[in-house]
Amino acid sequence: MSSISPEAIATVADLAGKSRVAARELALLSRARKDEVLRALADALDAATERIATANAEDLQRGRDGGMPASLQDRLSLTPARIAAIADAVRDIAALPDPVGEIVRGSTLANGLQIRQVRVPMGVVGMIYEARPNVTVDAAGLGLKSGNAVILRGGSAAASSNRVLVAVMRESLAAQGINPDAIGLLDGGGHDAVRALMTARGLVDLLIPRGGADLINSVVLNSTVPVIETGIGNCHVYVDAAADLDKALAITINSKTHRPSVCNAAESLLVHDKVAGDFLPKALTELAGAGVVLHTDERASAIADVAGVPFAIATDEDFATEFHGLEMSVGVVDSLDAALDHVRAFGSGHTEAIVTEDRAAARRWTAEVDAAAVMVNASTRFTDGGEFGFGAEIGISTQKLHARGPMALPELTTTKWIVEGDGHVRA
Amino acid sequence: MSSISPEAIATVADLAGKSRVAARELALLSRARKDEVLRALADALDAATERIATANAEDLQRGRDGGMPASLQDRLSLTPARIAAIADAVRDIAALPDPVGEIVRGSTLANGLQIRQVRVPMGVVGMIYEARPNVTVDAAGLGLKSGNAVILRGGSAAASSNRVLVAVMRESLAAQGINPDAIGLLDGGGHDAVRALMTARGLVDLLIPRGGADLINSVVLNSTVPVIETGIGNCHVYVDAAADLDKALAITINSKTHRPSVCNAAESLLVHDKVAGDFLPKALTELAGAGVVLHTDERASAIADVAGVPFAIATDEDFATEFHGLEMSVGVVDSLDAALDHVRAFGSGHTEAIVTEDRAAARRWTAEVDAAAVMVNASTRFTDGGEFGFGAEIGISTQKLHARGPMALPELTTTKWIVEGDGHVRA
Repeated sequence: MSSISPEAIATVADLAGKSRVAARELALLSRARKDEVLRALADALDAATERIATANAEDLQRGRDGGMPASLQDRLSLTPARIAAIADAVRDIAALPDPVGEIVRGSTLANGLQIRQVRVPMGVVGMIYEARPNVTVDAAGLGLKSGNAVILRGGSAAASSNRVLVAVMRESLAAQGINPDAIGLLDGGGHDAVRALMTARGLVDLLIPRGGADLINSVVLNSTVPVIETGIGNCHVYVDAAADLDKALAITINSKTHRPSVCNAAESLLVHDKVAGDFLPKALTELAGAGVVLHTDERASAIADVAGVPFAIATDEDFATEFHGLEMSVGVVDSLDAALDHVRAFGSGHTEAIVTEDRAAARRWTAEVDAAAVMVNASTRFTDGGEFGFGAEIGISTQKLHARGPMALPELTTTKWIVEGDGHVRA
Repeated sequence: MSSISPEAIATVADLAGKSRVAARELALLSRARKDEVLRALADALDAATERIATANAEDLQRGRDGGMPASLQDRLSLTPARIAAIADAVRDIAALPDPVGEIVRGSTLANGLQIRQVRVPMGVVGMIYEARPNVTVDAAGLGLKSGNAVILRGGSAAASSNRVLVAVMRESLAAQGINPDAIGLLDGGGHDAVRALMTARGLVDLLIPRGGADLINSVVLNSTVPVIETGIGNCHVYVDAAADLDKALAITINSKTHRPSVCNAAESLLVHDKVAGDFLPKALTELAGAGVVLHTDERASAIADVAGVPFAIATDEDFATEFHGLEMSVGVVDSLDAALDHVRAFGSGHTEAIVTEDRAAARRWTAEVDAAAVMVNASTRFTDGGEFGFGAEIGISTQKLHARGPMALPELTTTKWIVEGDGHVRA
């Protein structure tokens, strides 16, 4: 890899230096003050609806001129209703408990030393994401609430929207006597700017990439700053020999079609041979009826053929693909062990569901599948910070370090040991 | 950086593949079984004392022939008493609670879904360390107890010792029907082998480097596998204007001289101007009397001069140095703020102590210093897994992600969400 330009390194160092100063101030704010600041920030966003919509229209015009697909235009678009929803989400964050200051554990040692492990903010958190301007506000709000300064790097397609959103938020902070550098924007500078951010070790405490697999892999492989990997989901539904087939059908359809573009949607259906003949004709017909393109292995293809459902023969690549849309790979397996092997080979460690009425099978599945979330008789779509009751979500971690599964406010903190003595020395 | 040889990549992939299989088996063992295995492993080490000592003698001979410093020879040396202590440490690990299976949090959601976050092993943990053969057994024991397979990469100076220690442990595992690949040794292959281990993302779940700053920085900067940074400690003792000077003296001497080679020893003494005239003559005299070489700033130098204590003028580099021995930098500061600024500029985020009887100063210190451990009226030497009552320690993390401060068994685990429903789908 070519070296990073000194200008990009200097830009990031300057930005991160300011963020660090702001982070120090944020870390000392009370919950009451942070909530007040967040609510004022939400009001400021509401008040700036027209200004935001105007900037967003510029981005959309550029997008259309550049041939941006309709689905991306939709994700980029900020209608007044969406701006109101974004502001409301900030009010929701204000209403959540503050993780900072929570005592995780503590004790008085035999020698009288009092020790306690306390949640404290990370410091400076970088977010690298794509052209979804709502993430700009979400990340800033969650950062503020957890006492962290954020450095935001959104997709260039949303540059005008992000610029105005950040300006509105910074103005609101300044008006309330809060250091506006709590919300920093890494604007422009191309790929070199991102590389400088990824290697700003010691200046930035944590990087969270949000977006497609390419973005996440690039951040994970090129960062020297600690990273939390999020959101790649090749999720399976396994219909066991002892499944209730009505539940299996509902869970399969919901997991695949409820919102196929997101990471907790199922991409692959595995069915035990013993129930495949009963289950698959109905399941494949219903999936196809919902517009799902089916990639079936040999045995599933034979069943699809008889049922008159269109199919393509599945390759290993199909089983490895996160379709992000109305497509699904389908395989028939001979045993629970074969299903576990398949998930081990093709799963991405996000969410894996079994449908079964057999306690032993459920126990093995939850014990042996290595993933952020393992489901028994429930849709994969439940792996979600909102569904889990966290009230907010900054992403779904598919790595094992620090956070695994839906990440909310506590995952944006670290801890500090506070040790109090009275002249204690080690013998 | 040049590319890594295909042989090294293949060696690590093969080793990690075997470790992965073993890890899957370990993850399902009960605590009772793991403890039994650990106790048998300790007995096997005791029984192999002569074999281990013979291999160690080879390493020592090679060391002496190569001009190894006496202090390193001492760290490398395995006497029968030390082998017995290493085996006893494994028995101690067997007696510790098992973190695996602990329910971290859980609830029943409004829709009836039962969710719980459960501690599970990381999987495959790599350890890269220097020529301290006790780490070989420690890491294997802690790995086993926490259900992880380990891949060990010790310093080449301890190659013969590590080979025999690992052989003895693997034989003991095999004799008990446990997959011996639970303890893997990455033997030989030079720097390329280490680089292959550092980039075995997806094959290795976590890397923990233990050793000097160069080793740790190299692992942190070159790994694509998640890393926990350990053990760099530029720790300060700050003697506040409101300090009890007797406590301050005891804490300063203990922090610096109790065991100067380790990461939680103090490297730097800061004294408030108001008490410097009273405190420093006594403190500098006592430090010098204990053999401590003093690097003093201008004001501290003037006091040392009057007191007849030898000193050298401290540079910024001295204040940034982790001496790892009987040397200390000493500065006089005008205020608590100046002390905080100094720690911010020179601290490594390990352990920072204040000596004060002033509640407000203590409160500010514990709130504003950004470090793994902040001490009030206690020696920096207390930042230690054993002292904190963890019963074991795999290192002291100075990073913010996943673990911060002394790391023991829970820090070698991740979590998994288990979600149980009865046909639940998202509306």
